[in-house]
Amino acid sequence: MTRTPEDLTAFTQTALKRLRADVPLVQCITNSVVVGFTANTMLALGASPAMVDIPREASAFAGVASGVLINLGTPHEEQRAAMIEAATAAGSAGVPWVLDPVAIGAMPVRTPLGYQLRDLRPTVVRGNASEIIALSGDGTGGRGVDATDDVESALPMAQALATQTGGVVAVSGPVDLVTDGTSTVRVANGSPLLTRVTGGGCALGAAMAAFAAVDRDRLATTVAAIAVYTIAAELAAEGCAGPGSFAVRFIDALSTVDGDAIAQRAAIS
Amino acid sequence: MTRTPEDLTAFTQTALKRLRADVPLVQCITNSVVVGFTANTMLALGASPAMVDIPREASAFAGVASGVLINLGTPHEEQRAAMIEAATAAGSAGVPWVLDPVAIGAMPVRTPLGYQLRDLRPTVVRGNASEIIALSGDGTGGRGVDATDDVESALPMAQALATQTGGVVAVSGPVDLVTDGTSTVRVANGSPLLTRVTGGGCALGAAMAAFAAVDRDRLATTVAAIAVYTIAAELAAEGCAGPGSFAVRFIDALSTVDGDAIAQRAAIS
Amino acid sequence: MTRTPEDLTAFTQTALKRLRADVPLVQCITNSVVVGFTANTMLALGASPAMVDIPREASAFAGVASGVLINLGTPHEEQRAAMIEAATAAGSAGVPWVLDPVAIGAMPVRTPLGYQLRDLRPTVVRGNASEIIALSGDGTGGRGVDATDDVESALPMAQALATQTGGVVAVSGPVDLVTDGTSTVRVANGSPLLTRVTGGGCALGAAMAAFAAVDRDRLATTVAAIAVYTIAAELAAEGCAGPGSFAVRFIDALSTVDGDAIAQRAAIS
Repeated sequence: MTRTPEDLTAFTQTALKRLRADVPLVQCITNSVVVGFTANTMLALGASPAMVDIPREASAFAGVASGVLINLGTPHEEQRAAMIEAATAAGSAGVPWVLDPVAIGAMPVRTPLGYQLRDLRPTVVRGNASEIIALSGDGTGGRGVDATDDVESALPMAQALATQTGGVVAVSGPVDLVTDGTSTVRVANGSPLLTRVTGGGCALGAAMAAFAAVDRDRLATTVAAIAVYTIAAELAAEGCAGPGSFAVRFIDALSTVDGDAIAQRAAIS
Repeated sequence: MTRTPEDLTAFTQTALKRLRADVPLVQCITNSVVVGFTANTMLALGASPAMVDIPREASAFAGVASGVLINLGTPHEEQRAAMIEAATAAGSAGVPWVLDPVAIGAMPVRTPLGYQLRDLRPTVVRGNASEIIALSGDGTGGRGVDATDDVESALPMAQALATQTGGVVAVSGPVDLVTDGTSTVRVANGSPLLTRVTGGGCALGAAMAAFAAVDRDRLATTVAAIAVYTIAAELAAEGCAGPGSFAVRFIDALSTVDGDAIAQRAAIS
Repeated sequence: MTRTPEDLTAFTQTALKRLRADVPLVQCITNSVVVGFTANTMLALGASPAMVDIPREASAFAGVASGVLINLGTPHEEQRAAMIEAATAAGSAGVPWVLDPVAIGAMPVRTPLGYQLRDLRPTVVRGNASEIIALSGDGTGGRGVDATDDVESALPMAQALATQTGGVVAVSGPVDLVTDGTSTVRVANGSPLLTRVTGGGCALGAAMAAFAAVDRDRLATTVAAIAVYTIAAELAAEGCAGPGSFAVRFIDALSTVDGDAIAQRAAIS
């Protein structure tokens, strides 16, 4: 399947409409730093978030959710058990799930957990270049949540990882990459202010889970999630006084971004 | 005791003044998603929040707090123990406490916990229609935190639940219901934007605990909490660009809402 | 070493420039209420936050961090282990660390933990007067997170505590005190709105850890952190509609506050 940028832009417009009509139920097992912000991005976008992250409930919920996010930012013991449960249940039920392997590489608890989750075959993996390199088994991990590696340099590892999981891998950076191991798409929208707000990256993983719920073409839904999210960031950044105002305006923009903004701004290649 | 809407509006004005003079100490054992937002609503309203949610400290604190909120949104193991402790200690000390049985019904951990807490006789229960129906033992629970049932249809179960607990039950929705099993009051203020901000419902439970601290007439204090909270939401919604701005303006409005706004806007019946 | 207010103002200007150039990696083990806000203050200021708060990872990270914050606000079991680990590892590696003994005094879990951490010799202790008095072993603790004691009345205990730890002690209030046991500096900047936002005090502890990373004169870096933080609060408070707007504008102001604002406003004595 070859898709032109025009195809993907049109797909993004349609996917956003479907998301708002369907109100997908997105289970988020995510870190304590960004959990409130993530829920607010979901509500603004038009999804219904549920932060069900304890053992026994995580598996029960993942089977009925529309999509699941698993983010390793602050992996407390109960959350770790909940993550394995939810990934397993989502996999069995055919519910799409997104893995965000935050800061894996050198950290002794989350790194083996990340590999264990990778082997459960996430529908989408999202990370910065360092995290994707680490998760592909070829790198040494990142410095906290900053990427020290370049997005393009991570492409071969992202492709290998996608082939391994049978899913899609997205590498975040100034230009985002999405690959299914064969096709690779780039999205050049966004604002540096997204990196000045905690959760700016983490909540994108939730958006990918929400969009994955509306169509089975997960290369396209992942591109759509990135395009909508980063176009909202562009709208929010215009005339903005700083990262505090930006975070507020970004939530507003996620609730108002529409097909016209996508048509005018999408920089997909 | 029969109360007219005029009585309740006047009571609301007085209760808000007393709350700001007394600065009640409100212990919140609440979910990780909304804990910061809840603390900010308390500070804006004029209360003093304390998120003491670990075993041993929860009971020590509940005995000296002015009011306690127990919210089941993300009930991790330590929090579950802390909830039982705090509810027991509050009950023994005569400290009013509010139970918010978030998403109970089908979920395997929080549902039995909700029943256990219900049997400790909360001063106030707050939930959407589905949660109240589930807690009354007659329903099958909600879809995450959305109400799938209608507020008015939950009235018989809310009345039965209030009779069972000896307290007050509030059902949140476009028009909120409050009942003590005999009298029922409706509050028709608010804004749909409250449902687009995570914690929009959860923080109302904390407000109910804060108002319960200022008078022993808990039907009236619960109505007052809803009226003040939802009138602040109306003030915040005017000319608002989206849910991000709304959340900020709502905190501002909670700090400025006063007797005049209550007199002009209260829609109590 | 005697420092004039002019010296300290000039030092503050230089320290802020260095912080923004160095982007110190600040590990925060902090409470669930303020963790997102704290990360956002760090990003706005120019530091890189990492909320690594689980056992095994906490010690691994503290050895490579630029500074560490340990805040006792909601000390869950895993966090308590992580705090001891991180304080020990930071001490061994010569990484500066800040202890914020939130609400210690009467609370049965955090109070002995606070003493245990104190005995690991924090580089900086930050608290309100009641907390500093409690940590010095001479008081009975605070009422939640409010200071019931006066800042100046805590000075002898702050000095004794600084002598005991070999570090610096800061007492927050309308006028902040910083002492190393010998010299005492006062900073009279700030806004009452900081006390109306949850995390207004807690995030200052993170700022102290960030500034401690840029110079070994920790009396001066702690004064610099307070001055920058409270001057940003003054800038944010101007023409502000309430605590919701203030929190947003404060994050913006932390990202824009500069040497000129410091020169014009610093009230160091």
